Amino acid sequence: MARVSQEHLDARRRQILDGAAVCFARNGFHATSMQDVLKEVDLSAGAVYRYFSGKEELIGAIVEEVLGQVRDGFEEAALSSPPPTPDLLVAKVLGRVLATKESLTVDGRPAFPRLVVQVWTETLRNDDLAGVLRDGYGAVRQTWARIVEAYQDAGMMRPDVAADDVARTMMATAMGFLAQQALFGPAPTGILQDGLRGLMSVRDLPGTTDGSQLG
Amino acid sequence: MARVSQEHLDARRRQILDGAAVCFARNGFHATSMQDVLKEVDLSAGAVYRYFSGKEELIGAIVEEVLGQVRDGFEEAALSSPPPTPDLLVAKVLGRVLATKESLTVDGRPAFPRLVVQVWTETLRNDDLAGVLRDGYGAVRQTWARIVEAYQDAGMMRPDVAADDVARTMMATAMGFLAQQALFGPAPTGILQDGLRGLMSVRDLPGTTDGSQLG
Repeated sequence: MARVSQEHLDARRRQILDGAAVCFARNGFHATSMQDVLKEVDLSAGAVYRYFSGKEELIGAIVEEVLGQVRDGFEEAALSSPPPTPDLLVAKVLGRVLATKESLTVDGRPAFPRLVVQVWTETLRNDDLAGVLRDGYGAVRQTWARIVEAYQDAGMMRPDVAADDVARTMMATAMGFLAQQALFGPAPTGILQDGLRGLMSVRDLPGTTDGSQLG
Repeated sequence: MARVSQEHLDARRRQILDGAAVCFARNGFHATSMQDVLKEVDLSAGAVYRYFSGKEELIGAIVEEVLGQVRDGFEEAALSSPPPTPDLLVAKVLGRVLATKESLTVDGRPAFPRLVVQVWTETLRNDDLAGVLRDGYGAVRQTWARIVEAYQDAGMMRPDVAADDVARTMMATAMGFLAQQALFGPAPTGILQDGLRGLMSVRDLPGTTDGSQLG
């Protein structure tokens, strides 16, 4: 067998992961067979199994890659002091992840939001995948909590809310926005950025509720 | 046949809807048969088909009921002037919906968040259900947009963001929080309330980005 370059190996791996992602996005993990994946990527079983032992390893690799991208995006933000406000940060990281998956489509629409919802459903009956997802989300959540603490340290956010609660809420916003795209079609991340900017500006009217506000 | 009271008919209908919801939450819509539903509710086919023609009608009724509850909760809030801030409002409406479904469980955990994710997945391949969901979400989104306009009219939110963008973002937050519960287990809505309160308090530091803030 001819020696193959690392670039070739990486490109082949990428091709398999992308093809599997499209299959899973289209029909779900459960209803997709390895035969479907081989057909989608147009490679022999030998070529594919050289990289991945089966569906479980494929979905694990896809989930880890995406959550890794998300985590890296927020880690990078956590390094700047003070970090960018949540509206800018969420739109940037989500926009970047969507951009890397832009070429993957199902019925002419972006496959990625669909894939996310399919993965969620699969974790409801697949404990191994649920574990992968839990670990990945846990890491993102910790990074977000650090960013929230940085906001609080810089006096950008009231100090009397739990950093982890804000982290969960920020993640929920991005997750729900992806679900909306899967259900109702693609939408620019600028919508989420604008919506968060509006939310960040909400003030109680003096004397209505507790009225405690920062600054 | 003995005459039956409206209360009896309503209770029977409730029993069937709840049983079907548990089945769909457990295994998804596609993998659930009407036989599964009959077994879950412990009624004869004749008794069940008197109320619902089949799975499609069951899932349609469940989705419409839940989205109706959500819409009513926000409609009610839209009537008060000014409406409660988003942190209080989202936690209240979501908490109320979760409370009405509290008795429905799968493997000892609340069935409702699971059901929501299963319904999302099913809409990816079921155009009729996708239509029901789109209409229901559309109505909730319009109500939310009216609330956002009320915030803006009352001077509680900056006026230069699109009401619909904030409406989508608020819905995304609730949707993502439900997805988190389906994936990682139940969590009190107080987390979301606290997180939104934190988010509402975010301020740019003077001179960092655009610095335009309300008030």
